[in-house]
Amino acid sequence: MSTFSDYRDHVGASAERWFKSTIFLSPNMLVGMDCLEPGQAQPTHQHAGRDKMYFVVEGEGAFTVGAETRRLGPGGLAWAPADSPHGVVNVGAGRLTMLIAMAPEPK
Amino acid sequence: MSTFSDYRDHVGASAERWFKSTIFLSPNMLVGMDCLEPGQAQPTHQHAGRDKMYFVVEGEGAFTVGAETRRLGPGGLAWAPADSPHGVVNVGAGRLTMLIAMAPEPK
Repeated sequence: MSTFSDYRDHVGASAERWFKSTIFLSPNMLVGMDCLEPGQAQPTHQHAGRDKMYFVVEGEGAFTVGAETRRLGPGGLAWAPADSPHGVVNVGAGRLTMLIAMAPEPK
Repeated sequence: MSTFSDYRDHVGASAERWFKSTIFLSPNMLVGMDCLEPGQAQPTHQHAGRDKMYFVVEGEGAFTVGAETRRLGPGGLAWAPADSPHGVVNVGAGRLTMLIAMAPEPK
C-alpha cells in the first residue's frame, strides 16, 4: 500500500456483482472504490458498527439510505450511518465510479 | 447533518489560514472539505491515533506525508497514517479543493 495514489488505478468492472477495490486500509478506516456498470446494483445491506461514505466521481446513481432515495451525480455524497440499510443502483449510461470510506475497518 | 450532500455546498476560502468544513460526522469518522487558495499551505501537522485521507477534487497540491512529497491533481489521493506528519501546499493557479476523511473522529 502506497502513501499516494490515483483513483484511476483502482477502477474496474465485474460482470458478476460490482467491482470493489481497496486503496488504503488500517484498523481505523478503509478507503476504496465501488464501481457499477450501467444497470448494476449494490443491493441494500448494512455494516454493523461501521459508517460508510460514498463520493460520486463519475456517473449517476440512485442511492438509498434507510427510507430515503436520492439521485446523485459527480460531486454528490451519501452517508450511511452504522447499522443503517443502504444501497445504490447505477441509473446512468456509463460506469458509476464511487470513492468510499468506511470506519472502522470492515472485518 | 443530512444523509445526502454535494461537495460544492461545502467549499470556500479563508484569508487567514485555510478553509475547512464538516459534511458528515460520527464518533467513527469525519468527512469534510479542506480548501486552499493559491499559495496557501496547510503546515505539517499530525493527528494522534487518527488516519487521514485526502482526495483532490479540484486544483493541484504538493502533499507531504512523512519524508515524501508528491504533486497531485484531480483524482489524486494521499494517506496520512495515524501520528504521521503531513501537510499540503497549493501549487496551482486555482483553488485546491480536497475531500477529506479522518477516522476516528478528531476530538
